[in-house]
Amino acid sequence: MILANEFKLIERYFRPLAGPEAQNLADDAAILTPEPNQDIVISTDAMVEHIHFLAGADPSLLARKLLRANLSDLAAMGARPLGYLLTLCLPATIPAEWLENFTAGLAQDQKQFNLSLFGGDTTSTRGSIVASITILGSVPHGQAVHRAEARPGDLVYVTGTIGDGILGLAAARGEIDDPDGYLAGRYNLPTPRNALPICGLASAAIDVSDGLAQDLGHIARASGVAITVRAADVPISPQAARFPDRLPEMLAGGDDYELALTVPTHREAALLAAARAAGVSLTRIGFCAAGEAGVTLLDASGESIELSRQGWSHF
Amino acid sequence: MILANEFKLIERYFRPLAGPEAQNLADDAAILTPEPNQDIVISTDAMVEHIHFLAGADPSLLARKLLRANLSDLAAMGARPLGYLLTLCLPATIPAEWLENFTAGLAQDQKQFNLSLFGGDTTSTRGSIVASITILGSVPHGQAVHRAEARPGDLVYVTGTIGDGILGLAAARGEIDDPDGYLAGRYNLPTPRNALPICGLASAAIDVSDGLAQDLGHIARASGVAITVRAADVPISPQAARFPDRLPEMLAGGDDYELALTVPTHREAALLAAARAAGVSLTRIGFCAAGEAGVTLLDASGESIELSRQGWSHF
Repeated sequence: MILANEFKLIERYFRPLAGPEAQNLADDAAILTPEPNQDIVISTDAMVEHIHFLAGADPSLLARKLLRANLSDLAAMGARPLGYLLTLCLPATIPAEWLENFTAGLAQDQKQFNLSLFGGDTTSTRGSIVASITILGSVPHGQAVHRAEARPGDLVYVTGTIGDGILGLAAARGEIDDPDGYLAGRYNLPTPRNALPICGLASAAIDVSDGLAQDLGHIARASGVAITVRAADVPISPQAARFPDRLPEMLAGGDDYELALTVPTHREAALLAAARAAGVSLTRIGFCAAGEAGVTLLDASGESIELSRQGWSHF
Repeated sequence: MILANEFKLIERYFRPLAGPEAQNLADDAAILTPEPNQDIVISTDAMVEHIHFLAGADPSLLARKLLRANLSDLAAMGARPLGYLLTLCLPATIPAEWLENFTAGLAQDQKQFNLSLFGGDTTSTRGSIVASITILGSVPHGQAVHRAEARPGDLVYVTGTIGDGILGLAAARGEIDDPDGYLAGRYNLPTPRNALPICGLASAAIDVSDGLAQDLGHIARASGVAITVRAADVPISPQAARFPDRLPEMLAGGDDYELALTVPTHREAALLAAARAAGVSLTRIGFCAAGEAGVTLLDASGESIELSRQGWSHF
């Protein structure tokens, strides 16, 4: 046994991360007293060794990416982060240093995104490392942003740049050149867009975790609208722009953790002002129309681009 | 690929389990509108193949035990179940029948314990199956039962019978005789004590998942009291009573999912009345005194019993 026992683990590594809701991690559960007239928003996202990250991955980056993927789900609902529960399945032989780095990564991002640990469960495994977070946030009652409320005439926007995630994975694997490490950095440590307050502004939103085309497809189908995107309008980083042949991959690839959202024209100016105030770049890439629910990607000559693969699926 | 893709999985297996908070599983997150003057209680518990269950275990029983272990954490806080999020890491080669049985088990227990699925995440794995639940419940504001509020003079009670869990594991492994299958049944499908309303009655409570001695130790240390338990008073099922030599194991063994609780003498009658009304058996096993925080187990002659192993730890 390289790790101390479970209770010493909690004491040493997890208690410093805990907020008041965690009851000092001394109870069977956390207790959250909701603020009046707020809804609680809850989401969960897991990362599995060999599937979401390679064996030997930096535990600090891994922890931060997991937390950020969960934060991104709150951002897409317009919710403010409150706290999270962490489930870790670790081989009993894992070095203490691993957990030290993992929790150090959490501590750093907790501070940046203003949330704390509510509770968790740490178990041993004989298989792959699994790290899973359930995150809780709050949003004024009835104001959460959904996927199903995009309407014909709404404009389609996206934050940041698209495609860095999938290219960053290729870079991390050594398949493509990444001289300044920007692409791998974007893959390893995405920036969830919690800084952008979309409540009352966006009609629908989703975070781009499975690929822009697929994720916009979720909005299109849930809302019953036909979304058209001009590929040339999709914002691409200078580093990604070096790989124009890979554009279809970038439109289908996941792990961007940007927000794709729709906005009624009469709220467009207010959304852009909010983005400027938050320091988040926001680019118009298309529009919603009446018609068959789905996403059409157009190339520069107005021809439809067919993607060989729409996005990521585990099964 | 034996399973359909992720989105078809959600449609087919998970949507029928979803409550209104799940937003039809069509969004990035669930939305819970808390009732006024209620606190939200949140807990999480995972089960890992080869650690918590054997390869080839019945997926329906597995699902129900996982849900029940989480329900038991709510019972220990005095909280009413609301819903849960489910994370599943499954080999891509798992047969569809597995998931069908797993979700059928959830459906059955959702009905029995009156809660619904809020959301989740399903990912592939190349390693062990992992199933993790984060459960949410509610309790009147400020009324949750903690571990730290047992006081000298309080009496110690336990629900049901103790030791069936550890003997049931031995029975399931074929190490001991279990003619009517009762012990294995108690191990495979414990009964969380959500029926017993302990709010405003118990001063402290915990569910017996890691072993009675260890779990009472948590109350003793958190509350700063000396707990004394007469082993002869600990309720044992007739089936477990056939193994008197294994008593120390039964006091240290986990997986009972009974409640151990403390009660001030002036609320003892009310607690017993509540237990009778709920049809939950409740047995007095000891008391809390001032003194060094800890648990002393006494045998019939008043001698202290030393347990070679206090309870379960993963590391």
